[in-house]
Amino acid sequence: MQFRFTLHRTDGSARRGTFHTPHGAVDTPAFMPVGTQAAVKALTIDQVRSTGAQMILGNTYHLALRPGEQVIRDMGGLHRFMGWDGPILTDSGGFQLYSLAQNTKVTEQEATFRSHIDGSLLALSPERAIAIQEALGSDVAMVLDHVIALPAADDVIRDACERTIRWAARCKAAATRSDQAQFAIIQGGLDPELRVWCTMQLAKLDFPGYAVGGLSVGESPDEMVRVLDVVCPAMPADKPRYLMGVGTPQDLLNAVRRGIDLFDCVMPTRNGRNALAFTDEGPLRLRNQVHQRDERPLEQSCPCLACRHSRAYLRHLFLADEMLGPILLTHHNLTYYQRLLADARQAIEQDRFVEYMEAKVLGWRNRTLTNGQSCKSPDQWSG
Amino acid sequence: MQFRFTLHRTDGSARRGTFHTPHGAVDTPAFMPVGTQAAVKALTIDQVRSTGAQMILGNTYHLALRPGEQVIRDMGGLHRFMGWDGPILTDSGGFQLYSLAQNTKVTEQEATFRSHIDGSLLALSPERAIAIQEALGSDVAMVLDHVIALPAADDVIRDACERTIRWAARCKAAATRSDQAQFAIIQGGLDPELRVWCTMQLAKLDFPGYAVGGLSVGESPDEMVRVLDVVCPAMPADKPRYLMGVGTPQDLLNAVRRGIDLFDCVMPTRNGRNALAFTDEGPLRLRNQVHQRDERPLEQSCPCLACRHSRAYLRHLFLADEMLGPILLTHHNLTYYQRLLADARQAIEQDRFVEYMEAKVLGWRNRTLTNGQSCKSPDQWSG
Repeated sequence: MQFRFTLHRTDGSARRGTFHTPHGAVDTPAFMPVGTQAAVKALTIDQVRSTGAQMILGNTYHLALRPGEQVIRDMGGLHRFMGWDGPILTDSGGFQLYSLAQNTKVTEQEATFRSHIDGSLLALSPERAIAIQEALGSDVAMVLDHVIALPAADDVIRDACERTIRWAARCKAAATRSDQAQFAIIQGGLDPELRVWCTMQLAKLDFPGYAVGGLSVGESPDEMVRVLDVVCPAMPADKPRYLMGVGTPQDLLNAVRRGIDLFDCVMPTRNGRNALAFTDEGPLRLRNQVHQRDERPLEQSCPCLACRHSRAYLRHLFLADEMLGPILLTHHNLTYYQRLLADARQAIEQDRFVEYMEAKVLGWRNRTLTNGQSCKSPDQWSG
Repeated sequence: MQFRFTLHRTDGSARRGTFHTPHGAVDTPAFMPVGTQAAVKALTIDQVRSTGAQMILGNTYHLALRPGEQVIRDMGGLHRFMGWDGPILTDSGGFQLYSLAQNTKVTEQEATFRSHIDGSLLALSPERAIAIQEALGSDVAMVLDHVIALPAADDVIRDACERTIRWAARCKAAATRSDQAQFAIIQGGLDPELRVWCTMQLAKLDFPGYAVGGLSVGESPDEMVRVLDVVCPAMPADKPRYLMGVGTPQDLLNAVRRGIDLFDCVMPTRNGRNALAFTDEGPLRLRNQVHQRDERPLEQSCPCLACRHSRAYLRHLFLADEMLGPILLTHHNLTYYQRLLADARQAIEQDRFVEYMEAKVLGWRNRTLTNGQSCKSPDQWSG
């Protein structure tokens, strides 16, 4: 078996596992840096590796548009193209059809849309989403799901959810590569019953992994947690569970606590490019005057490239519009996320995950209380 | 003596030496990457080091404006601020007063100008240029010179040249740090007699190093060579000779052949950000369609970060507007320049510099002849 998920230990609902793929193993819970266009923005592939990342994410939608999946296939597949020899998961494009493409129209057969790059009219069906991902050669391919804007009428949410299940079955039927696992995507908005129903329908199709989609799209952290509270127990325990597009450090710990194994999010990279650094004492905004002569690194014990420099230097780089500012803060934030989950894995192994989580949350909140910066919980991480 | 220039060998007029500074030795001929704003654009300081660079350049004008030399002094000086423990040379601001500042007016006492950042009215005198550079703590400070636009009337060129000499004397008198060496700057436009006269006047002031300024400002390569042909023999043989702001790979070899020891130029970094890669077969423009499926690296034997990837991947990064494109090509181009000069040093040691240079030039020209790209000598490198 090229794909295998081993559950080593649970601590409450939190899970410590290993996800085995043809390109190596991933210690879970794990965070996947986002490499949308066959590159994690601002970093060389060695730098991505040095953050501690074991698995990364690429995007079907973007790569099919540019450079085109045939180019990547002809160049030996996505791993070789971008120089990453570890596991890769590719998103299916379902979310980008909702968030990025223009004039998206969904029929039972397929979604049609206009490219956000040149406006050309294109189509994406479940079969085509899998064909693209097989050409890319990712280890994990996501099924094409029907993502809708929330809030929406109940029947609209249910219709998209049911289509997502039918499309998942079509994706599964379209698979031809044994070295690629498909993960199904659970939809259903914020409706607990629909979410659980969707989970059980998809579980019957016996996918090697399951994802929770349609979250982190504007709902509150409490609403997200309520969905996870009902969905996680309904998800197959012996398969990896992936929460898509989430989220803040606190979101991650909230979800790990409920049994999620895999994450991806642009938050560490995008915020890094915008001069926001994640720390155990909450976010630091590096453009602020307060850092002008601050000799301290972002975090004393952080092994990243940014923390070899002073906050004063990092601030200067952003004010002077030097690319090195985004580069260094991206490396710091991804390192922060990897350390957060590495420490979470250790805490689960030692049966003290809740204690670990509460200490982290306290640290993030203390900063708000002590220096009155504009980082209020629960949105303090929204940057 | 904290500063010492040792001449190991000459091959014709080409010189193989070592320039000793308080922050270490530099093998010459050497190329200094430009770190204008306390950062070499697009690279971490480790990546700068990994190109083979031993000495880098910073800019008085930019750093005095932002973050201000007092901030850098308070943070322990420029070396510590940017995390570079090797030698640093700082330009004096003379060239930026000419090229970048607005409304520059020069009197005998000082230059007044408006900041290119916020338009504020500022002044730079020889004494202030040295005070700033002493606050920065660079190993080599450049004297403030009077740079003018060419072509200009003879008396204007002579007036600026004479002022440059008087300002050099004032810079020397203003020095208070024994761990900083000042290099004088030879001006005089394209007038051979004036250049030689300026060189001899400055030589009388006994500086630890001499620079040729006012070149690479639009004159032809032949005109540059003619200036070097008369200036180099007039420069003190026992001091390092620095050709400012030059140039293309061929410019560098032209100048090494005539006895220049030090170079700086934005060409490898700026061109790298604009998708032009320097190679032994001439420049490659990475956005071109011809690279779409090209599996080859830029150069087979190059140890840089870009050459771990295919040309197809590099092209994709530029078309997709990923920062990694500029990052990788900057690393390649700086590595190319460092290897060009490392090989030049070896050729001088082995008394075969002209042979080495001719082989290089032939390689660069062959490309033009064989594939008809738009890279015509002598402007083939202007990118």
